[in-house]
Amino acid sequence: MYKIALIGATGSVGSAVLRVIETYPQVFSLYSAAAYRNIEKLISICKKFNAKNAYLYESKKYDMDKDDIFGINLKTGSETLEEMVCDPNIDKVIFASSGVASLKALILALKSGKDVLIANKESLIVGGKWIKESIKHDNQLLPLDSEHNAIWLCLGKSCRASDVRRMFITASGGPFLNYPLEALSEVKPKEALKHPVWQMGNKITIDSATMMNKGLEIIEASILFNMPIDRIEGFIHPESRIHGGVEFIDGSVCLAAFYPDMFLPTLYALSYPQRLNVPAEEKPLELGTLNLKPIDEKRYPCYFVAIEAARMGGAYPALLVGADEEAVNLYIKGSITFTEIPKLIRKTLDSYKGEEPQTLEDAVELVNIGRTLAKEQFKKYL
Amino acid sequence: MYKIALIGATGSVGSAVLRVIETYPQVFSLYSAAAYRNIEKLISICKKFNAKNAYLYESKKYDMDKDDIFGINLKTGSETLEEMVCDPNIDKVIFASSGVASLKALILALKSGKDVLIANKESLIVGGKWIKESIKHDNQLLPLDSEHNAIWLCLGKSCRASDVRRMFITASGGPFLNYPLEALSEVKPKEALKHPVWQMGNKITIDSATMMNKGLEIIEASILFNMPIDRIEGFIHPESRIHGGVEFIDGSVCLAAFYPDMFLPTLYALSYPQRLNVPAEEKPLELGTLNLKPIDEKRYPCYFVAIEAARMGGAYPALLVGADEEAVNLYIKGSITFTEIPKLIRKTLDSYKGEEPQTLEDAVELVNIGRTLAKEQFKKYL
Repeated sequence: MYKIALIGATGSVGSAVLRVIETYPQVFSLYSAAAYRNIEKLISICKKFNAKNAYLYESKKYDMDKDDIFGINLKTGSETLEEMVCDPNIDKVIFASSGVASLKALILALKSGKDVLIANKESLIVGGKWIKESIKHDNQLLPLDSEHNAIWLCLGKSCRASDVRRMFITASGGPFLNYPLEALSEVKPKEALKHPVWQMGNKITIDSATMMNKGLEIIEASILFNMPIDRIEGFIHPESRIHGGVEFIDGSVCLAAFYPDMFLPTLYALSYPQRLNVPAEEKPLELGTLNLKPIDEKRYPCYFVAIEAARMGGAYPALLVGADEEAVNLYIKGSITFTEIPKLIRKTLDSYKGEEPQTLEDAVELVNIGRTLAKEQFKKYL
Repeated sequence: MYKIALIGATGSVGSAVLRVIETYPQVFSLYSAAAYRNIEKLISICKKFNAKNAYLYESKKYDMDKDDIFGINLKTGSETLEEMVCDPNIDKVIFASSGVASLKALILALKSGKDVLIANKESLIVGGKWIKESIKHDNQLLPLDSEHNAIWLCLGKSCRASDVRRMFITASGGPFLNYPLEALSEVKPKEALKHPVWQMGNKITIDSATMMNKGLEIIEASILFNMPIDRIEGFIHPESRIHGGVEFIDGSVCLAAFYPDMFLPTLYALSYPQRLNVPAEEKPLELGTLNLKPIDEKRYPCYFVAIEAARMGGAYPALLVGADEEAVNLYIKGSITFTEIPKLIRKTLDSYKGEEPQTLEDAVELVNIGRTLAKEQFKKYL
């Protein structure tokens, strides 16, 4: 029985983790759960899964009765996350939240030698260097994201890094794959928030519509798999069957396919190095026609802005994270148009005159700087 | 440096093996080569690759000067194959011939503990039981055929058999994928011998047009990978990029893709467990649109006859090999029509009243019985 600590229990990846735990109660149990601010949902999850330990990142007062949390050890405040992951009773720590709020806890979890599963691209992009220095053993840090999970599946258990020539991940294309290009500037947040395949939070859904999400995932893959950014490629794949692949040095390609449901990559990462049976009454994967097309720069400039930021390296990937957050924010508020998102991000990156980060704290601060610079650029130009 | 013994040096798979040896002269050398009857080509291969040992299966007189074979140790006759594979100087033995003529040598090679690479489905189908009893260690018997190589690539180096739910292989569809069904009975051997993707010998090209080849490959995969026949499926895949795949017990699927060129699977099997670099100026695999469709029983009845023979087990797979040889033979001679091939094979299988094979010799004899029964059925009904 593996005891799980789940950070981001109330989000979409968190709910996939909970489905896995629920499906295999003999294998996994929820030991502790953390959320950012949704205390009601957090407590109800803890009750349902009989988890005794709840952590709330925000430390502001909550209006729940003592009776409501009876039997649950609730702690609040950002620093309690670090306490959470260091509990020696835990076997696996899952980082299913977004943003960099759990970055310190992630590094602590790795240093403690526990298995760590991650579906948090911001932390990897901003703190990749420090995260990787904290890894204690092979296969300690495992990807939950479907694309990275797919690459990892293709690499197999004993693949040598020197055997890999190229990696790729796919994107469904989002809601605007076939939208008239010239009308993109007019699309309302309501339309951009309708993702054809995945149900996710607002920020990541807009990032999927702009294809920034895929750019961030390419950077994430580059960090996770030690692969130069120009050897990882994104493809548009509207059928969402194939999620990622690896091209080996002999030119052969391995592709990983599954239904677009986070249950599967989550299960694979949680049960690794075993595989657990998903009952056969589930219908086998239909393949049919699979289209894999290059990503069009005119339709998806954000993807290329992200790759550019990764190529520039240094402060730019962390700045990108902050600038994108602010740009999406401004778009959802109606302050900028859909096609102004990449423009604002590009201007923000261009406006940075500072240094590379020397410490993890510097790197995290760069996300804030990215946000601030984006606000400035917005006021200046748009 | 690996010393290679190549059986079937003058055939299409043999030429792929020779291309690999030629491309990596620091890694592989041809130590000995065998052919069925084409002595001129065999000697010219030995000269080009500086191989000192040549073996000709047919022992009839050949009209070559002593000068022509100067420096080459030429031996003739079927029993010399066994001598060939037992030479302790050899590291890897490759069975690239078709038919069951090399079955005894194959078993000897395995018993000697050498690495054995095989692209000979008849031997596996007829002698599978005895071949597998002769295997001395894991990964000793490696598949060269693109489809089986693809499955093997998907399994990875340390996959547990219990992790696999289903396997599949693909077929291009051959020359008659879109041919009017009602006109199939009229197709001439000349048309059936035009394969859209692979350049191969006559027998296997007709088998590809009827899809018998895919049926035989399914049986081969079932033997090689210890997989029940009903858990291996063929798909029509006209683009010939994906060659095989594995579905795991959790429902995820791994697909192996490469250009349809025997160079690649041959290289992978020869260099295993290493991977060798194929220079990057070779263009990366284009994926584009990939179609995977079920095999249509009306168009390709031979495929279903083969699966049926495998399900019946016992004598039937070996009988199938003989019956198909004779049916293809009769078709090429113009004695039966294209659509009579599956009918004749089915009648042949139905007419068998004998026992299961008890020994390898029984099994090999069943191929002859299959041929003889097919001739009888031809005279009787067609």
